[in-house]
Amino acid sequence: MTDPQRGRVSRRTLLMGGAGLAGVGIGAAAVGVAGQVSTPADAPGTGLVPFYGRRQAGVATAPQSHVQHIGLDLVDPGDVPTLQGVLNLWTQDASRLTQAGPSLSDTEPELARTASHLTVTVGVGDRVFRAPSLTALRPSWLKPLPPFSIDRLDPRWGQTDLLVSIGSDDPVTLAHATRMLTASVRRSVRVRWVQRGFRNSPGMASGTMRNLFGQVDGTVQPPSDGFDSLVWNDGREQSWLADGTSLVLRRIAMNMDTWEALDRHGRELSVGRTLDTGAPLTGTAEFDEPDFTASRGGITVIPESSHIARAHRRSEREQILRRAYNYDDPPEPGSADTSNSGLLFAAYQRDPVEQYLPIQARLAEHDDLNVWTTPIGSAVYAILPGATASRPLGTSLFEAAGGRSGGPRQK
Amino acid sequence: MTDPQRGRVSRRTLLMGGAGLAGVGIGAAAVGVAGQVSTPADAPGTGLVPFYGRRQAGVATAPQSHVQHIGLDLVDPGDVPTLQGVLNLWTQDASRLTQAGPSLSDTEPELARTASHLTVTVGVGDRVFRAPSLTALRPSWLKPLPPFSIDRLDPRWGQTDLLVSIGSDDPVTLAHATRMLTASVRRSVRVRWVQRGFRNSPGMASGTMRNLFGQVDGTVQPPSDGFDSLVWNDGREQSWLADGTSLVLRRIAMNMDTWEALDRHGRELSVGRTLDTGAPLTGTAEFDEPDFTASRGGITVIPESSHIARAHRRSEREQILRRAYNYDDPPEPGSADTSNSGLLFAAYQRDPVEQYLPIQARLAEHDDLNVWTTPIGSAVYAILPGATASRPLGTSLFEAAGGRSGGPRQK
Ligand code: HEM
Ligand code: HEM
Repeated sequence: MTDPQRGRVSRRTLLMGGAGLAGVGIGAAAVGVAGQVSTPADAPGTGLVPFYGRRQAGVATAPQSHVQHIGLDLVDPGDVPTLQGVLNLWTQDASRLTQAGPSLSDTEPELARTASHLTVTVGVGDRVFRAPSLTALRPSWLKPLPPFSIDRLDPRWGQTDLLVSIGSDDPVTLAHATRMLTASVRRSVRVRWVQRGFRNSPGMASGTMRNLFGQVDGTVQPPSDGFDSLVWNDGREQSWLADGTSLVLRRIAMNMDTWEALDRHGRELSVGRTLDTGAPLTGTAEFDEPDFTASRGGITVIPESSHIARAHRRSEREQILRRAYNYDDPPEPGSADTSNSGLLFAAYQRDPVEQYLPIQARLAEHDDLNVWTTPIGSAVYAILPGATASRPLGTSLFEAAGGRSGGPRQK
Repeated sequence: MTDPQRGRVSRRTLLMGGAGLAGVGIGAAAVGVAGQVSTPADAPGTGLVPFYGRRQAGVATAPQSHVQHIGLDLVDPGDVPTLQGVLNLWTQDASRLTQAGPSLSDTEPELARTASHLTVTVGVGDRVFRAPSLTALRPSWLKPLPPFSIDRLDPRWGQTDLLVSIGSDDPVTLAHATRMLTASVRRSVRVRWVQRGFRNSPGMASGTMRNLFGQVDGTVQPPSDGFDSLVWNDGREQSWLADGTSLVLRRIAMNMDTWEALDRHGRELSVGRTLDTGAPLTGTAEFDEPDFTASRGGITVIPESSHIARAHRRSEREQILRRAYNYDDPPEPGSADTSNSGLLFAAYQRDPVEQYLPIQARLAEHDDLNVWTTPIGSAVYAILPGATASRPLGTSLFEAAGGRSGGPRQK
């Protein structure tokens, strides 16, 4: 509620804040809003987030209350023209749906009348780059994370060729967009998994989200001054990927039963922050800087083994944009657990090997929170640069591959 | 948007309307708001729906955007004191959670700070009445529906001993309430299924909801003057059930693939209403009275085989309160379908045999919509009368059973 560190408000509001700011992606200059789809001047007010732009929406956009991460495999992963056709179609449909218009062959156009900050964000997995024309274009970091001792990965939530992340404040809009974007390409790609996440409804809660352990989750984020260079690709390694980024998507189960058996103080020590406000144990408000050296009676106030002490950056590069959502699925049939809950942990960063891996390796080595959390899914994607009406998603990739010759094969 | 039939607005607004009216259950006089939980005077504004009252909330309450119907079985269905203990605990926890307070042993009290029109509605299935002290108290209609030729029932979504329906506009609130209400009784009851449904987000759309076929769904409802006698039990057969009601919960799969293969006109003929506004094919606005006799060139405009022609009441008793939600789950592993969507069809009425069955039997015999819809789950519950702080859920039942002697056994 009260925030003593006013200086931090602008960044925080931008990242986590109210619906009115959706679409004002940090550093995401709005370019080339063109084509048949018109964007009203009062876009944010009417719940429209621009789709066209240098960078894709849905990364630095204020998080909506619902998300679906959809993992898909190409029927023929070597068939680059088909991939191009799929990305063309997604560009056309997403540019319409996000602006509250029906998709190209929309079968329920009435369900497209509300966008509610709909965003569609597309990424590609490593297998796509096995196609001969694309091999040299794979970013070096685009590969599975190394295995960690804490992992209990289920192939059900594993790496896929393509990722479409759809976010909206309205679950009906989200269901419809999901249907349109998957049904239109069903002959070329197969849905492997759908991971659904949620946060507090718009207007129901303000500020940083809470996860199902009750923790304030998402406080520490890249600062606004270093944001672009920490999050967006600069094209140095692969020029086609400039203004793209990377996504590490981990599905992390949270064991409610054992967590709830722990007393409140134990829970706060395991993270290093209070449950009430999310303040570090050395402070009084959420955005207070934690003091990892402060001690009382010879014991550090924030335990060195706590999640934030272990996760805290050891260098300026070790910063990632966290955009997690809660999941809460019915327990698997036959399971003894009373809940099947956790986090769709999504981290965006320019280079996951440089930025994400050191943090993850440290947490895998030790993190008090590991007692109650278990990674069960893992995938890494290159999030494509943004699209315009004349340059659909993936254009820079296919240009780099010299693949304009044949043109895309539709579906 | 425009509504030519202003006379209908008040009922419609009450039933389907904005959040500001939540809790103003039709005919649900607010009685006995007592006990530890205080209800602010501006309850609707702050998103609180009264829990205590003559009748349970969540039936005539304006539908929230998210619902979870939870089916549970008693570990020992003959153990009436345990049933009473469970209902006591649910009363205490629901009376707190719905008023934005933590449950009795809340382990994540921070997640209880927002109610977002949280309602908790409890019902009992027929098996509960096999306990000797309760046998004579079973309402005659509390039994499975007869099988219908259209049914493809999956026992996974079948009858359970108990039902808890939780509704809220906030998915985090909903997840937390679900957790609290199921974890606290885990030694006495087992969750058999959780059915999750959604509608448009509050404030995102106005008026009647749309289902995933794109249809306006929920237009025709019991009129305000006959509402109480059509929906609420009057205690004539079982006096303990006065101010309770019945729920028929059908899980109905909707085949998106085949539906979308049909042209728009064919879809409108199958229901008898337009997709655009939901107006009957003989009218221009949603709430226009359909004219089932109007014909053009010798053919009735609303086909006699259409859903509304078949579902329309043949007598005044054939009226039910429909409160359906969309579901959209990931396709089952190995399924060839691209969607796993449908309706959590919930109908409340005083007597399902008299009111619901004739409609259902007629639809099973013929309904054009049957081509694309398939009932896959079915259950019937007696929704208990409302509770007060001194008379928890089920009190009238246990009093009628003379079961106050031993008192409830906790958990
Ligand atoms: C279910 C698993 C997890 C839970 C419940 C969780 C929860 C939290 C919470 C409550 C905080 C403190 C508030 C904040 O700054 O957001 C936090 C901080 C953080 N977490 Fe996690 N986290 C999880 C997994 C991860 C993973 C997998 C990573 C990266 C590999 C990670 C990286 C971080 C970082 C970098 C911070 C900020 C540390 C600082 O500088 O203070 N977390 N997390
Ligand atoms: C997936 C299955 C179903 C779908 C998609 C569906 C859809 C619809 C639609 C679009 C309408 C017209 C608008 C309205 O009045 O709400 C309607 C009306 C109606 N439906 Fe259904 N329905 C389904 C199942 C059922 C079932 C199982 C019943 C009862 C057994 C039922 C009973 C009714 C009634 C009574 C009406 C009002 C008819 C009138 O008097 O005009 N429906 N339904």
